[in-house]
Amino acid sequence: MNFEYFTPTKVVFGRGTEERTGELVKEQGCHKVLIHYGGGSAVRSGLIDKICGSLEASGISYVMLGGVVPNPRLSKVREGIRLCREEQVDFLLAVGGGSVIDSAKAIGYGLANEGDVWDFYDRKRTAAGCMPVGAVLTIAAAGSEMSDSSVITNEDGWIKRGYSSNYCRCRFAVMDPELTCTLPDYQTQSGCVDIMMHTMERYFNLSDNMELTDGISEALIRTVMKNAKLLKADAANYEARAEVMWASSLSHNGLTGCGTGGGDWASHQIEHELGGMFDVAHGAGLAAIWGSWARYVYREHPERFARFAVQIFGLEDNGDPNALALAGIEKMEEFYRSVGMPTSLKELGVESTDAQIREMAEKCSFFGKRTVGVMKKLDASDVEAIYRMARG
Amino acid sequence: MNFEYFTPTKVVFGRGTEERTGELVKEQGCHKVLIHYGGGSAVRSGLIDKICGSLEASGISYVMLGGVVPNPRLSKVREGIRLCREEQVDFLLAVGGGSVIDSAKAIGYGLANEGDVWDFYDRKRTAAGCMPVGAVLTIAAAGSEMSDSSVITNEDGWIKRGYSSNYCRCRFAVMDPELTCTLPDYQTQSGCVDIMMHTMERYFNLSDNMELTDGISEALIRTVMKNAKLLKADAANYEARAEVMWASSLSHNGLTGCGTGGGDWASHQIEHELGGMFDVAHGAGLAAIWGSWARYVYREHPERFARFAVQIFGLEDNGDPNALALAGIEKMEEFYRSVGMPTSLKELGVESTDAQIREMAEKCSFFGKRTVGVMKKLDASDVEAIYRMARG
Repeated sequence: MNFEYFTPTKVVFGRGTEERTGELVKEQGCHKVLIHYGGGSAVRSGLIDKICGSLEASGISYVMLGGVVPNPRLSKVREGIRLCREEQVDFLLAVGGGSVIDSAKAIGYGLANEGDVWDFYDRKRTAAGCMPVGAVLTIAAAGSEMSDSSVITNEDGWIKRGYSSNYCRCRFAVMDPELTCTLPDYQTQSGCVDIMMHTMERYFNLSDNMELTDGISEALIRTVMKNAKLLKADAANYEARAEVMWASSLSHNGLTGCGTGGGDWASHQIEHELGGMFDVAHGAGLAAIWGSWARYVYREHPERFARFAVQIFGLEDNGDPNALALAGIEKMEEFYRSVGMPTSLKELGVESTDAQIREMAEKCSFFGKRTVGVMKKLDASDVEAIYRMARG
Repeated sequence: MNFEYFTPTKVVFGRGTEERTGELVKEQGCHKVLIHYGGGSAVRSGLIDKICGSLEASGISYVMLGGVVPNPRLSKVREGIRLCREEQVDFLLAVGGGSVIDSAKAIGYGLANEGDVWDFYDRKRTAAGCMPVGAVLTIAAAGSEMSDSSVITNEDGWIKRGYSSNYCRCRFAVMDPELTCTLPDYQTQSGCVDIMMHTMERYFNLSDNMELTDGISEALIRTVMKNAKLLKADAANYEARAEVMWASSLSHNGLTGCGTGGGDWASHQIEHELGGMFDVAHGAGLAAIWGSWARYVYREHPERFARFAVQIFGLEDNGDPNALALAGIEKMEEFYRSVGMPTSLKELGVESTDAQIREMAEKCSFFGKRTVGVMKKLDASDVEAIYRMARG
């Protein structure tokens, strides 16, 4: 299976690396930065001050725009575009997790292209560029610091859409695992699910992957599971934070997709509508959906799920791929529950009406204009069935 | 352990990808290419014609310089620099394996910097840039297509030296596994050893690595070993060629070194002198040296060698790391022999005098100015002892 692999992001990983932010922006030849961030924790912890000091030391000026929320919103993106135009910003520095980075990428598209930025997310046009983005990562989850993707929610209809292109890949990513040590457990575990799922979406497809890609993917999933459990017991375990943080980037920079033909991604598409309508934590939403998706599709290629069961959970190959596949799905749900993650919409805290489920399924299929997934091409009625199975 | 990771090379992998060479050079905004290659096989196979056609179709002009030999030579580099200056070349296209790519990188340093290019390899100065280099890979081994390194042999004294910087990383790498299907078995297996060793050099160090890096490294080594055996039986196995080719890049692009503190590299340094003096195949030279190096140093951190034995060969952990370490070293040598690789200088075909061994050890230690390795810092007398152990 032919593939392309392009990960130009310069990673600077380890303790104290946030002190190098100014030097890294300067390396890019940029002069005025938008510091884009979420809630007040980045301010209260002193991180924003440190970054401002580092920028000043490199002779870089800046303006700030905070208030990015999970499932980041189009209105904030528009606010950022206006501000950056007024202030003649030439570099976007995201200080936060996936939501903040995705919001910065969307601002970058808006600045480098004419017209309405939502057009790209709405598949009306393709972008011809993106203003340079860099990241100081504070939440290990989305992998947006090395990925080509960005997901934005349009409050007009609460539609959540992703747009991907190499233009938006971060120029650099500063990753100090220590910055994630104070993250609440639910967010940590939700992040771990998201990391695993970025690899699992690529792992499950109709063909057999390259062995090297499978081996790397399995090592990554096992590493994240082990360290998620360690973090459940001790949130401040630096080594475990480091493993999870590096896994977050490798899981979504394309490495685990080499030779897979692109992966399935149905679970992500199905969860996006949940996130758009109910504003749930993305990883928790994925955990709540995955088992139902897997049971709905595993018969299309049970051998892939069987391999997963053997390599990830050490189940013995009994020669019955269907039984092995189901046992592996069961084991994964057990793992999710063991780290406090939901395996149904009910456990996720979502009480959905039939009408809401139909609406999400319709939105997910772009009102009949697309199917999602490759293991099985799912139309609106398939997606509706999966939401119903996941109700719990 | 803090680290940086930077792999900007755009990889275009799979059947027929050489047809995209022209488009890829054009993407870089370049106009005149040096096509740099080795022997006549790239011409006879029609590959050079295909590449010329692809460049012409993209409106890119070119000049040619062939004749690069294994352990590529400084005189050819100087010839390339002169030719490129005369012809106002702005892009260096290496068509071949590590030797050709390394030679192109050296030409790139020579063109982008004043003064003598050997100064960089001789540690007299550091380079401030490199003319853009791209690669069409025809031998999976050196990993130079994604690495920051380049190794050149100066015929004046037959000194082989490496120089590393991010400047020389390839802009793109075209990897069609089919181009390697006609490679003779000895070169294939020698390449596989080189690939494994690029990860093993990073794997063996005094600390414990990141689990994720260890897991990826072990998956990579197992994959190469399995596919080296498949290629021994069937040199034209496309899937096996693809696994080995992608492993060659991942093994040396920095991925398997993340959080390892840089790795050991003594085996490479010790082999370089062999290559410089006896012109042996690099991977075969590494196979001939590695067991002796490992037995000389394993007591510094037997647990690392013990883990290797368990993870790579499935040996049972009997609680005796020293015994396990030795058993693993033994198993690796068995593997080398099983694919026709030497495990001593004698099997490598090198009959060295005591004076030659002393000379290589002196050169390897830069005449007393450096030690090599981190597992154990080896001076000239250590290196001499390892050459003697390896004599066989």
